[in-house]
Order: sequence, then structure tokens, then C-alpha cells
Amino acid sequence: MSRVLALVHNEFEELELLYPAIRMREEGIEVTIAGEESGALYRGKHGYPCRSDAALKDLKSSDFDGVLIPGGFAPDRLRRIAEVLKLVKEMDREKKMIAFICHGGWVPISAKILKGKKATGSTAIKDDLENAGAIWQDAAVVIDGNLISSRSPSDLPQFGRAIIEALR
Amino acid sequence: MSRVLALVHNEFEELELLYPAIRMREEGIEVTIAGEESGALYRGKHGYPCRSDAALKDLKSSDFDGVLIPGGFAPDRLRRIAEVLKLVKEMDREKKMIAFICHGGWVPISAKILKGKKATGSTAIKDDLENAGAIWQDAAVVIDGNLISSRSPSDLPQFGRAIIEALR
Repeated sequence: MSRVLALVHNEFEELELLYPAIRMREEGIEVTIAGEESGALYRGKHGYPCRSDAALKDLKSSDFDGVLIPGGFAPDRLRRIAEVLKLVKEMDREKKMIAFICHGGWVPISAKILKGKKATGSTAIKDDLENAGAIWQDAAVVIDGNLISSRSPSDLPQFGRAIIEALR
Repeated sequence: MSRVLALVHNEFEELELLYPAIRMREEGIEVTIAGEESGALYRGKHGYPCRSDAALKDLKSSDFDGVLIPGGFAPDRLRRIAEVLKLVKEMDREKKMIAFICHGGWVPISAKILKGKKATGSTAIKDDLENAGAIWQDAAVVIDGNLISSRSPSDLPQFGRAIIEALR
């Protein structure tokens, strides 16, 4: 059974975190939603709640087969957290799934894993992705090796399908 | 390809509507989210938005293979709408999928289709379900013929799986 880490912070885009998280659980994949604190209540961009299962500082990349990075403004916080960047870098080095959507791309930018890789995201961060060395593509889902990226909540059917296929 | 009607009104439980809707779209199923008006912006219990694709008065049960009824307080409104009850009654008569979760059970209660049927829902409406003749079961998902029911958002992995299996 796969185990996936999902990152949360306040202002997360509700469906971009919770659709893939529930989708993976539907498939029998163990999903750990982690924030700076364990058992803390985070609020989405529209106010939907999400309680974290674990604290980032207690996690090791070897415990997971991949990471899910939602959009909203949560990634603006997440990219400043050293443990987040370490986990994402290590998982990328081991070719584990790195799935990011919308503004989620800010985290792999700060983990410095995008050079020469095809990726997509919110048009708001197209310049940030390109300046980090990514090759921008305007598509519902872009897959480059272990990286899976999508643009917005309307891409969630394709994003979900790609995540499940990658973990099978 | 299957076509499913999803009912929306204000105060809908966000994930109970949008998780199964996106899940079905991931599977290639055509989902029509319908409210009293077409193109209207409805707000979930926590404020997440959902724009309706169609108006209930323009729909025929023969256009669909099933209906999804989310919880939150939306079903308190939906059960008062004659078109909703007609659509649900007709689909039940044709043994099409009727999927309801949490407080969503209020709609099949008012459509009078639950007598002698096994069902679950929010514990808040256990008495309403039993008084309508349903046989209450405390389980993540209860399937009785064409009826699929679940209790709460934490049952969504099982609810989603049951919906996809029923439509295959």
C-alpha cells in the first residue's frame, strides 16, 4: 500500500487538497495530512476546515511514496518551512511522486527541483515557474518523470487520475 | 457514458457535493449540477462556491442515470421543490442510482421512496429516516438496490467507490 504526504497550511485551496486526499484514500492509499503542528485546525481560502494528522518536523521522506502540494495561498507559507523543502527535495531525489497544483508550484520552485522539467500551474506563477527553469505547458495535467502538475480546481479530474496512475 | 444529476442549494456540504461530482467526472461520467436557477452561484456551509450548470425545471429524469444528493442544509431547501421530488421519484421507479449522504436523506424521505429500504445518514436524521420506513444501519456506506447512502464527509472514500461501482 502506498503512503502519501499531503501538505496543509492556512488559506489552502479546499478542493485541491481534499479532492486528491479523499481520492487516494478511496484507492486504499494512506494519506497523512501534515502541517507545522499535529492536530491543528487549518482553514481553507473559503473557510473549509482541515485538521492535520501529523507535524512536519516528525516526518521522514522514507515513510512516503509521494507528496501532494495544494494551491491557494498555503504554499506561500509552506515554501518558507525548512522541513517542507527537505522532504520535497529528498522525495524528488528518490524519484517519488511530487504532485502540485495551481500555486502549489511555489514549493518545488523553492525546493529547486524544476530546472529543465515540464510543469504547469496557475497563470499567476507562470513567470516564477519559468524563472526557476521549468518548461511551462498550458495543459490540464503535465507529467514529467515523477512530477505531476495541474493548473486549477477545474483540472482536478485529470490531476486525480494522473496521481492514481502514478501510484499504482 | 453515464449522466448524473447532482442537486445544489445554499448551505450544501462542500465535499459531499464536490467530491463525488469531480470523482464521477474523473471517470468520464457527465455530471450536471442543478439548482433552482441555471448559472447561479450557490454557497456551501463554509462558504465554498458552486455555480449551477442547469435549472431543475428544465430537466427530465430520462436524461439521467442517477442522482447525487449532498448534505449540509441544502436538502432542507431541496425537499420543498416539486421538481426535485418528481425527478427523484421517477429515477427511483426506473431503478436508477439514488445516492444521498448525511442530511441528504431528507430528500428521499420527502420523495417517499424509503419504505422497507436499508439506509444511513447523519445521526441527526436517524429518526426521520426510520419514521419514513427506512431500516437504519450505522455503516460508512449502505447499499439497498439502487439506493446508496453514507453518514458524513469522513465516509466519502467508501461513498465515492460505491457510486462508481454502481454506474459501471
